[in-house]
Amino acid sequence: MPSLPPIRPEDEAAARRQAPVGAFDAPVLEEADQARFDYLLRLGDDSLILGQRLSEWTGRCPSVEVDLSIANFALDLVGQATFFLQEAGKVEGQGRDGDALAFHRDVLDYRNCLLVEQPNGDFAQTMARQFLFSTWQKMLFEHLRSSRDPLIAAVAAKAVKEVTYHEELSVEWVIRLGDGTEESRRRMQDGLEWNWRFIPELFEMDHVATEMSERGIAPDLSAMRDDFHRKVQAVVAEATLDLPREQRPILGGRRGHHSEHLGHLLATMQFLPRAYPDATW
Amino acid sequence: MPSLPPIRPEDEAAARRQAPVGAFDAPVLEEADQARFDYLLRLGDDSLILGQRLSEWTGRCPSVEVDLSIANFALDLVGQATFFLQEAGKVEGQGRDGDALAFHRDVLDYRNCLLVEQPNGDFAQTMARQFLFSTWQKMLFEHLRSSRDPLIAAVAAKAVKEVTYHEELSVEWVIRLGDGTEESRRRMQDGLEWNWRFIPELFEMDHVATEMSERGIAPDLSAMRDDFHRKVQAVVAEATLDLPREQRPILGGRRGHHSEHLGHLLATMQFLPRAYPDATW
Repeated sequence: MPSLPPIRPEDEAAARRQAPVGAFDAPVLEEADQARFDYLLRLGDDSLILGQRLSEWTGRCPSVEVDLSIANFALDLVGQATFFLQEAGKVEGQGRDGDALAFHRDVLDYRNCLLVEQPNGDFAQTMARQFLFSTWQKMLFEHLRSSRDPLIAAVAAKAVKEVTYHEELSVEWVIRLGDGTEESRRRMQDGLEWNWRFIPELFEMDHVATEMSERGIAPDLSAMRDDFHRKVQAVVAEATLDLPREQRPILGGRRGHHSEHLGHLLATMQFLPRAYPDATW
Repeated sequence: MPSLPPIRPEDEAAARRQAPVGAFDAPVLEEADQARFDYLLRLGDDSLILGQRLSEWTGRCPSVEVDLSIANFALDLVGQATFFLQEAGKVEGQGRDGDALAFHRDVLDYRNCLLVEQPNGDFAQTMARQFLFSTWQKMLFEHLRSSRDPLIAAVAAKAVKEVTYHEELSVEWVIRLGDGTEESRRRMQDGLEWNWRFIPELFEMDHVATEMSERGIAPDLSAMRDDFHRKVQAVVAEATLDLPREQRPILGGRRGHHSEHLGHLLATMQFLPRAYPDATW
């Protein structure tokens, strides 16, 4: 079925007017805490949403080996999310833990980038998304290892090993499919094209990112851009693919303006705790 | 993405052991009321689930005219469901209205046939499903017009006009696509093949159907089978298609054993009332 494009920045006003009940009851925090809370949500939501997306492949991959790899990626990412969201809950100080933040926020309160919520499409599209995201996330976590924020530094130091493997494996698939048959090449090229418009958002320096950078908590994302493009270009060249043409960037995820895909993902992910609020393990 | 087959009858015991919290807190009713309650759920859930499925096409159909037709089918079906489920709530007598039955039951408590929960697939698959279901539903409602149950008779008398149109339009599409291009023919043939294994369930006479028939509330479904197959055969022949080969029947929907597709449909359909239990129009 064809997909509609995500909400564009100019739809912001309209989207805010339609916010569902309770979606914007954000806590009142000191400014410094608010920025750190927002930043922890970004880190946590990126990992959580991509982990959930990847878990959709479980039992459906082209081979058992790939199935296990993808399931492990998902587990790695959900593990990262647990640390970041748990800490976000502490900063917020309203009694919400990581589970509450994962399972009882509505779509407009999510702060992940749009790239991770994109549909899996075929295996090539999933791997194109993984390659682009893991390349970026690995660079980010390498910087975050020396963050002045001890929790973020510690999680990044552990997670960078996982993400290094995500990058390696997805690079292998980009090359294998790109430099493969005519059909696999076409599919990988299409996969890169699909995801390309969500790349500029990864390097956007809004006020939260700027404050985090100034406080030595996070890197200047815009300074990572050239290095990222060099890495992508090298892999794309080895895969005998074309770098996608420049596309109109789609932004908004960091402000809670998501594509329709995220709402469906959350409906599935949140079903159990929504339907059975008292359920325990 | 490939789909897993629905739960088979022999998986019944396992499925029951895994029933989620609260899924089987069925009311204790007099036997006669229990059968009528179950039957009203079957009628209501068939219409509700197909209506929800069809609504997924809204804004995505091949043309605006078709889009409006499908959206109207969905509205007709949800309207039918409202009457049947409202009445089921009254029979149950526990204060649940039609909305509560639609939005706060879990998957194992749904009593729709498996055919209506099947994924839309492409437009041909959707129309194949519609043709098979509407042909059956029209025959059923024609009988139910003379049901001894006044509510069921009244709803059927109104709904049969709607369903007659659903059948006509879907028959047109089966013929147009079947007797069309090579690709449209292949797709319609595939659509019929996909849905065919769910047809035997429509004619199953279990204890609820038998009791309803004996009380003059509903027809003997098994007596409708030959007529149904004659009708289908005539359309398939005019469409220059082949009647699908006999397949292993998949049963279980009437007892709450559904395919994985229904859980995802419900997660989406029930999201709003689950997330915002106090929301009002």
